[in-house]
Amino acid sequence: MQLEHIKILGFDADDTLWNNETFFREAEAEFYNLLTDFAPKSVIEKTLFDTEMQNLERYGYGIKSFVLSMTETALNITKQELPGHITHEILELGKAMLAKPVKLLHEVEETLGKLTETHELVVATKGDLLDQQRKLRKSGLAKYFHHIEIMPDKQITDYQTMLARLNISAQNFFMTGNSIKSDVLPVLELGGYAMHVPYHTTWVYEDVHDDIQSPNFFRGKTLSDLLEIIER
Amino acid sequence: MQLEHIKILGFDADDTLWNNETFFREAEAEFYNLLTDFAPKSVIEKTLFDTEMQNLERYGYGIKSFVLSMTETALNITKQELPGHITHEILELGKAMLAKPVKLLHEVEETLGKLTETHELVVATKGDLLDQQRKLRKSGLAKYFHHIEIMPDKQITDYQTMLARLNISAQNFFMTGNSIKSDVLPVLELGGYAMHVPYHTTWVYEDVHDDIQSPNFFRGKTLSDLLEIIER
Repeated sequence: MQLEHIKILGFDADDTLWNNETFFREAEAEFYNLLTDFAPKSVIEKTLFDTEMQNLERYGYGIKSFVLSMTETALNITKQELPGHITHEILELGKAMLAKPVKLLHEVEETLGKLTETHELVVATKGDLLDQQRKLRKSGLAKYFHHIEIMPDKQITDYQTMLARLNISAQNFFMTGNSIKSDVLPVLELGGYAMHVPYHTTWVYEDVHDDIQSPNFFRGKTLSDLLEIIER
Repeated sequence: MQLEHIKILGFDADDTLWNNETFFREAEAEFYNLLTDFAPKSVIEKTLFDTEMQNLERYGYGIKSFVLSMTETALNITKQELPGHITHEILELGKAMLAKPVKLLHEVEETLGKLTETHELVVATKGDLLDQQRKLRKSGLAKYFHHIEIMPDKQITDYQTMLARLNISAQNFFMTGNSIKSDVLPVLELGGYAMHVPYHTTWVYEDVHDDIQSPNFFRGKTLSDLLEIIER
């Protein structure tokens, strides 16, 4: 397939350019430990997930939302007898997450450096505005990107808004990310192109079974696989 | 003064287009009541403000950040003996704030309707991405705006980024808002124009003493005063 008509390359950020989800997994494990006297891990895990889903529209994505949902979960698990020192520990978990360093994934910087010679690159990420901008700054990658789009969600309409702002049709847009649900399906639905690069851990919410049959869809092992796809 | 060279009109959102700060004042009053057995109001008030300032860079603006800082304040005030039911009430205060209706301020819709015939209008607001987009949708005002810029902060550099994205120089930009600190001073500093429309209550953090001597600066009582300034 010829991909010479691709003008803009979109990139998810968390777990595509740098690691992120592992910090959530680690914080969850610490959170379960904090409540170990009150309920088994499986119950806390399910309550946390249910609480996050109930709060998703209200709080959106990101670490602050996660901390609020952990606190609410802890209140539920302890039947509102939550000791203050545990509330404190939950806030501290969030602060530690916000202070984490940004570690680039394999071959990310080299790949972006090459692609920027031939294409416009944009970051398309959902989550907390301040936190995403902070990570982008820490990553040192901002210089490769023409535009940064921080979206409240990654539904089809959110991509439509972004493409309109970029003044480009979906047929000229190629998105790369680690989430089939957020980075691949909505873009294919609009007639664009997408590559999936899996990360070793995926939030259950983002984890969809895929059986995608589309000539516009590609699978990669690392971000650098994009070089071959785009340039062949 | 002739203002025919103004091409884009920028508008702050919270307390410029719709009411917002009153919800924070009401939530603070309820928060002080929750802790009335532990400390006098003045102590809680100061601790909350100090906590918000310490967390500003970490959490940014918005309701979720406010809830996290209220929780931290309550832990400090109670020396970590914070009862679970109060933690619950704090979370509920935040949820209630997020569910508040958006009430437009005086003559806002009529004014925007007239200005949109002659100028491009943009919203330039700081705060939580999801919450600001939700309010804009609820307000019914989105149709008047060419561009929505939700900024992590409103420093000079944030305005520079926005003006670059809008492809316009500050000399052709006129900003209107209720905060001297966030909406007026940085824009004047860049060589742009600004109108201050005070709101009846201002967060202490935004409250700066002003003694502005600039031909590019205007004072309004309501948003509609902009019509006369722009069209004269």
